[in-house]
Amino acid sequence: MTVEDELFNVRTDLAVESRDMYVEKDKENKQDIKGVTVRDKQERDIALTYIDINAEGEKRIGKKEGSYITLYADGVKKQDTQKQQNAANVFASELKELLKKHHVPADSTGLVVGLGNWNITPDALGPMSVEKVLVTNHLFELEHETVSDGYRPVAAVTPGVMGVTGIETSNIIFGIAEKFKPDFVIAVDALASRSVDRVNETIQISDTGIHPGSGVDNKRKELSQETLGVPVFAVGVPTVVDAVTITSDTIDLILKHLGREWRDKDRPANSLTPAGLTFGHKELTDDDLPDDEKRKRFLGIVGTLSEQDKKSLIEEVLTPAGYNLMVTPKEVDGFMRDMADVIAKGLNAAMHSSITADNAADYSR
Amino acid sequence: MTVEDELFNVRTDLAVESRDMYVEKDKENKQDIKGVTVRDKQERDIALTYIDINAEGEKRIGKKEGSYITLYADGVKKQDTQKQQNAANVFASELKELLKKHHVPADSTGLVVGLGNWNITPDALGPMSVEKVLVTNHLFELEHETVSDGYRPVAAVTPGVMGVTGIETSNIIFGIAEKFKPDFVIAVDALASRSVDRVNETIQISDTGIHPGSGVDNKRKELSQETLGVPVFAVGVPTVVDAVTITSDTIDLILKHLGREWRDKDRPANSLTPAGLTFGHKELTDDDLPDDEKRKRFLGIVGTLSEQDKKSLIEEVLTPAGYNLMVTPKEVDGFMRDMADVIAKGLNAAMHSSITADNAADYSR
Amino acid sequence: MTVEDELFNVRTDLAVESRDMYVEKDKENKQDIKGVTVRDKQERDIALTYIDINAEGEKRIGKKEGSYITLYADGVKKQDTQKQQNAANVFASELKELLKKHHVPADSTGLVVGLGNWNITPDALGPMSVEKVLVTNHLFELEHETVSDGYRPVAAVTPGVMGVTGIETSNIIFGIAEKFKPDFVIAVDALASRSVDRVNETIQISDTGIHPGSGVDNKRKELSQETLGVPVFAVGVPTVVDAVTITSDTIDLILKHLGREWRDKDRPANSLTPAGLTFGHKELTDDDLPDDEKRKRFLGIVGTLSEQDKKSLIEEVLTPAGYNLMVTPKEVDGFMRDMADVIAKGLNAAMHSSITADNAADYSR
Amino acid sequence: MTVEDELFNVRTDLAVESRDMYVEKDKENKQDIKGVTVRDKQERDIALTYIDINAEGEKRIGKKEGSYITLYADGVKKQDTQKQQNAANVFASELKELLKKHHVPADSTGLVVGLGNWNITPDALGPMSVEKVLVTNHLFELEHETVSDGYRPVAAVTPGVMGVTGIETSNIIFGIAEKFKPDFVIAVDALASRSVDRVNETIQISDTGIHPGSGVDNKRKELSQETLGVPVFAVGVPTVVDAVTITSDTIDLILKHLGREWRDKDRPANSLTPAGLTFGHKELTDDDLPDDEKRKRFLGIVGTLSEQDKKSLIEEVLTPAGYNLMVTPKEVDGFMRDMADVIAKGLNAAMHSSITADNAADYSR
Repeated sequence: MTVEDELFNVRTDLAVESRDMYVEKDKENKQDIKGVTVRDKQERDIALTYIDINAEGEKRIGKKEGSYITLYADGVKKQDTQKQQNAANVFASELKELLKKHHVPADSTGLVVGLGNWNITPDALGPMSVEKVLVTNHLFELEHETVSDGYRPVAAVTPGVMGVTGIETSNIIFGIAEKFKPDFVIAVDALASRSVDRVNETIQISDTGIHPGSGVDNKRKELSQETLGVPVFAVGVPTVVDAVTITSDTIDLILKHLGREWRDKDRPANSLTPAGLTFGHKELTDDDLPDDEKRKRFLGIVGTLSEQDKKSLIEEVLTPAGYNLMVTPKEVDGFMRDMADVIAKGLNAAMHSSITADNAADYSR
Repeated sequence: MTVEDELFNVRTDLAVESRDMYVEKDKENKQDIKGVTVRDKQERDIALTYIDINAEGEKRIGKKEGSYITLYADGVKKQDTQKQQNAANVFASELKELLKKHHVPADSTGLVVGLGNWNITPDALGPMSVEKVLVTNHLFELEHETVSDGYRPVAAVTPGVMGVTGIETSNIIFGIAEKFKPDFVIAVDALASRSVDRVNETIQISDTGIHPGSGVDNKRKELSQETLGVPVFAVGVPTVVDAVTITSDTIDLILKHLGREWRDKDRPANSLTPAGLTFGHKELTDDDLPDDEKRKRFLGIVGTLSEQDKKSLIEEVLTPAGYNLMVTPKEVDGFMRDMADVIAKGLNAAMHSSITADNAADYSR
Repeated sequence: MTVEDELFNVRTDLAVESRDMYVEKDKENKQDIKGVTVRDKQERDIALTYIDINAEGEKRIGKKEGSYITLYADGVKKQDTQKQQNAANVFASELKELLKKHHVPADSTGLVVGLGNWNITPDALGPMSVEKVLVTNHLFELEHETVSDGYRPVAAVTPGVMGVTGIETSNIIFGIAEKFKPDFVIAVDALASRSVDRVNETIQISDTGIHPGSGVDNKRKELSQETLGVPVFAVGVPTVVDAVTITSDTIDLILKHLGREWRDKDRPANSLTPAGLTFGHKELTDDDLPDDEKRKRFLGIVGTLSEQDKKSLIEEVLTPAGYNLMVTPKEVDGFMRDMADVIAKGLNAAMHSSITADNAADYSR
Repeated sequence: MTVEDELFNVRTDLAVESRDMYVEKDKENKQDIKGVTVRDKQERDIALTYIDINAEGEKRIGKKEGSYITLYADGVKKQDTQKQQNAANVFASELKELLKKHHVPADSTGLVVGLGNWNITPDALGPMSVEKVLVTNHLFELEHETVSDGYRPVAAVTPGVMGVTGIETSNIIFGIAEKFKPDFVIAVDALASRSVDRVNETIQISDTGIHPGSGVDNKRKELSQETLGVPVFAVGVPTVVDAVTITSDTIDLILKHLGREWRDKDRPANSLTPAGLTFGHKELTDDDLPDDEKRKRFLGIVGTLSEQDKKSLIEEVLTPAGYNLMVTPKEVDGFMRDMADVIAKGLNAAMHSSITADNAADYSR
């Protein structure tokens, strides 16, 4: 049935990936792209990357001007509730900072929009998060005196996807926003990743708005300060990856692995180590990539291709065979539930000063 | 948690009930209320009542001017799939007639609105029905040439309820309608009944629009031709009943039962019947109601109260005790699923000439 | 469809109701039924009734010999999370006591059985509770050294209902128990109540075992120490009530209400009170019941019937009319979710010494 | 939380894959493995492979003696309801044949077992299928006279998985079977595939029984004629695939793609074709595989590895990096629902002579 095959778009919405792709193409300028400022930070067990892009940077790396904050938090993947709690805390404080930076007053009205399709689990992060967001706007409207200090009016909607409603998702949100007139909007969405290890691990916050279903159809309009007239923050988590990416990432790992093996085999230290014995799993890094001659030896012509060319080749091969699946880890149900929990706790704590990520469980529905 | 206790309003949205309540108060005019035309019909095993109310009728019985069609279809209650199929057929053809009566062209664009709360099963008829409605609008927009004849553009939304979104439900719909500009709207909602035996059995179709959450809050606005500028059809099914109604209905049955027993005990025919033996379950009717003297004898003062006074007394007793529950049959999950199926099949067949209720299963999602 | 209409049996499984029914019939012996010991206690905001029945008591009130503990906890009904937490605490400590009383060792193996039908929400208390129970048995079996102190081996199953599996539920449990050989069994089930105000408010714990689907079919076997050879504890919560009970309870309230009104109308204090003004909602009690002459005046013959005769009359009237529904409050989804949470937290804390009801949330799934 | 991370085992349960793996290792004997008979058939749009393995074959390819029937049906993947209907039809008649072959009488009692974890969508094929199976055993037991001809007694259970129940799944089934004493058992389970294109497309039927959670733990016992004393049929559908398989399959496709490109570039016919223009997507086959010299040129050392060595290398690289995910297509929810529908319709039609796959929809729940 055609109405059900809602397109789940392959979006490179992660600014860190756009940066990496640019760097990959232009290796000389690695640490210094004009118009793009990058800063890393470690907060407890959460790594953070801040990317600020100005108009010039936008032209270079093709990513909209604005601030992007990326959290790497593996608590969901590892099913570690303490780490998930930390992630909610750090996410909340980063979002709070971003609201402040945009001068969003503490008592202003927020609209949380859960993008995506309820019926496709890996695309349901938006609706699943919104379901746990503390909604207070009606309490302010109907019984203002009963609302305690430390809360702001918050509304939350799940507009669905075009394949389910038949209506352009942006139009639904524009219509609601015109009647409701929020002071700011936060949109939550599931993303596709260009890297296997970012799936269910990376949370990106930005102040640049979002395209529901972007990339696929230019006619669709973006949700942003420009179109809605109020600040629009986007929260995105990669939940799917395509077979091209999986294969391409794996080929890179094979090159690094063989590169390191080759390099290590002549090391004196290594000669003392019994064969097959390695000390811990030292992570493979770019330093392990072998030179071109060895790349050719290990992986032939394919080994010498640029990232871009390699992906194009893989896509060319997989697509006609019907193999270029978009996939998600088999534990998708639990991952989505836990990630929605992290996002909702973070949203509640960032928006209401009386809520902290630690007591947020009491406020989630 | 206050955000969750969404009010499920006791609405007397059934025109047949308004008529009955009026008749009850003014017994002389039983068959002849000025401004209210009533007509009954039998279609296969489905009983139908057509009530047309004009401006004068609206003043008398307090029900909005317009046409109301009521189907009595017990296929869902009896879990009889064949009867459910008949109900879908009759519902489809009645709705089709009503669309024609309002000159809705075959290729005009429809918006189906599923009112109610996904998280409260007996209030979820709207969302559950909409989930099975064939949505085609995006196909017309994106790939017009591929849509076969016999279909019209249809969109479908589930705006949620104020306790979940924080936003007045009418405002969400007004906002969407202003952007989407449908040619007609069909709203589906669960209702409360004033009679036990109408629950999950009665389907009302009207052309008068609907108040989401009506009765509770006057500030909330109605969805109707007046507010939306296009015809608004409402489809409603009673799914809950309150304890006052259950008790009041039962007291009436007790009176009728005792009345008939009294009347029958002196009948010669009866004296020949062995005690306790009755021929089938002859349904109790208004003719079984005893006279005032016997009502007093059977049920004391309570037996002589008018319908209205009796319900007031019961409410006065139950409410402070916290007993005035709104209840639903325990088989609510299956009933709602089957009724949503009947409604969705009927909507699809009424809106698309290529679909009949019989092949509608292939089109439901 | 016949396979789906699983019978949801009207069980009077609450010992307090059996006691009340007996007392009602034999008013002289109100406080003193031979073989039945009753003791009340108040624990924070939870009222408790302990009923101990010996062989003689079993003959009198028709309730199996053993201990019954009843908690009255309105936290679920009132959607008060603090009260729900208290209820879980008290439930846990009462169940712990009962395990001790039966000399169940701290490291013995438990089997939790969630009775009832997943597909019928008000009957799903067993499966919904079991889903949140901490299951540890496989950890002990597969990786014994990793299990911390303070936990015991616990397994949990949801055998379904005969209408869904086609197999006698007891047989499924007997089969599993013979292979698994637990040291004790705890069965959780939804019950029907004989009183409106006990629905979703009363938790009964007993050491007498349970009949899955009892009352309906004598061929079905009971789960008990006698049949399983190990202690069988039963946890039951009334989640449904029938229309007969609702009506009968309401008629009683009407009598009490009118009785009190009559009594109060001549009181001097009352004459000073403006009409219609009452000071708070004083709860109606048995003392408000009027004498026979007034009962007749208020409610005729019906007013003078015994509890038993009144219910028989109502049943006789409602059943042929198809009105004797088994119903559940419309908020069934939320009530069941919260009650399952209370039960699961209590079970976890009662079975594992490292878990308290307060930290139990971290252990629920 | 450790109780939730139920292992979803990588099983090579498909006999066609075992055969292929064997053939791959021993290329000389391609069409002729001693003790293994292979026969292909085309039934409408469904391709079928029959593999019969005797004791000698079992030793060679490591797959249990018995009959394996494999259907390739892409109706679910392509969301084509007509193709799904065909698949259900062919599946039903093949299973019916297998029941006949084992002399299962038409009125004997069947037990359908839905293996897998309800809470992990891609592992829920068993429970989802069983939910739609027509259960009749209780009707035969309780009201024998009302069951029409053309039906047999069927029961159905979903034993859960060890991570959820804490009990060895085989033990649950052995316990139930000892009490219920079925004449035959059909077990339905989700499998892992060694090939991307078999996911959600291949249905394997066998008469060899099944290991719940097999491969992982030798202590777990198999469900088979040997252990249960009655014929045990297994129905399996691959629903997940690991990253090693995706990468390995892709590398094969790259080799074939480059092999064909190389071969075609010198063909005269091709020189007349404008560059980039190809006629349809001719599927890549084993004939496109280049010779060793070209394999080395295209993909270096990796290109010359055997299937087995290549997979070992990839696994060695991916596992320490945490990249060796087991994944499922993002449309998992819809795929599982449709496949469960196909399986349940097929089971119903195979077991009850009054049901055909075409009218089976009326019997599914």
